Amino acid sequence: MRVLGIDPGSRFCGFGVVEDAGGTRMRHLAHGVLSLGEERPIEERLQLLHEGLARELALHRPDIVAIEDVFHARNARSALVLGQARGVALLAAAQSGAKVRSFSPSTIKQAVTGTGRAEKEQVGRMVSVLLGVAFAGRLDATDALATAICGILRANDPQEAVARSPRGDWRVALARRFGK
Amino acid sequence: MRVLGIDPGSRFCGFGVVEDAGGTRMRHLAHGVLSLGEERPIEERLQLLHEGLARELALHRPDIVAIEDVFHARNARSALVLGQARGVALLAAAQSGAKVRSFSPSTIKQAVTGTGRAEKEQVGRMVSVLLGVAFAGRLDATDALATAICGILRANDPQEAVARSPRGDWRVALARRFGK
Repeated sequence: MRVLGIDPGSRFCGFGVVEDAGGTRMRHLAHGVLSLGEERPIEERLQLLHEGLARELALHRPDIVAIEDVFHARNARSALVLGQARGVALLAAAQSGAKVRSFSPSTIKQAVTGTGRAEKEQVGRMVSVLLGVAFAGRLDATDALATAICGILRANDPQEAVARSPRGDWRVALARRFGK
Repeated sequence: MRVLGIDPGSRFCGFGVVEDAGGTRMRHLAHGVLSLGEERPIEERLQLLHEGLARELALHRPDIVAIEDVFHARNARSALVLGQARGVALLAAAQSGAKVRSFSPSTIKQAVTGTGRAEKEQVGRMVSVLLGVAFAGRLDATDALATAICGILRANDPQEAVARSPRGDWRVALARRFGK
């Protein structure tokens, strides 16, 4: 199983590709940052974002695209700007045929460090440890790789598997129908 | 000149196409609402939105795509959800080759009613008057048509034309460069 994690932004977009190597072992395949140009109009940056992600998705053909979900933002304006980039990333993921999974920031931190309130440095160190790769200097794609790792670990989690099985879905549908 | 106005949402997306008929006269060409399905995952709804808008853009070939800008929202969550739809709409517009223009809600209301604080009903009545079409019943695409009308009127505004002329751009670039 292969997961491509996306950390979308309106000026830079990080991505990271991680493969399941059995159990909790994982293999780093690629990571990078798409630069969208700060001076361009937003619609051109979104077009660059879509082209860049479509290229990476076609290259790596992930089974799952993992993306951070956002519930909080400095203000409505920054949430809207972030939402625009996230919408285009979700579109590119859906168009590639991959399954899409959203994870909250705390779920991602919990998955890679064991605590939902980890600092950015701790997340970076654990990304290196879990992937067995020493990243030199500041790694802009850390969040994207952490999101991809979370996608792998959650997909392998038996609890998650039950919740997503046909029987699980059927129970949820039934509960919804009868208001339980 | 032809303008396609978009009122993007994550469940419904209104669109309206208006053509310049000389002076302040305008011709209604089309309007409609894309239904994205409330039960689908967001990435599928965004894919339906992109396909639907791409189809309308290919059909009507507007010179300008006009879209409402949003600065306020109930909360960061609703701004993010709206932003996702807006991002996909901006992408479809850019991919069509049309110029993109964003207008604040008050600019749109000002353009069609003369006041930036007009009620929804007043906007609806003026859309009917300006386009010379009596719309029966509730019109879901009113906001999209109002945005398209704003796009026509602002493009014909001499003030706007100066600001967007090559010379205007050159002055802005120079002022930026020298920090004026």
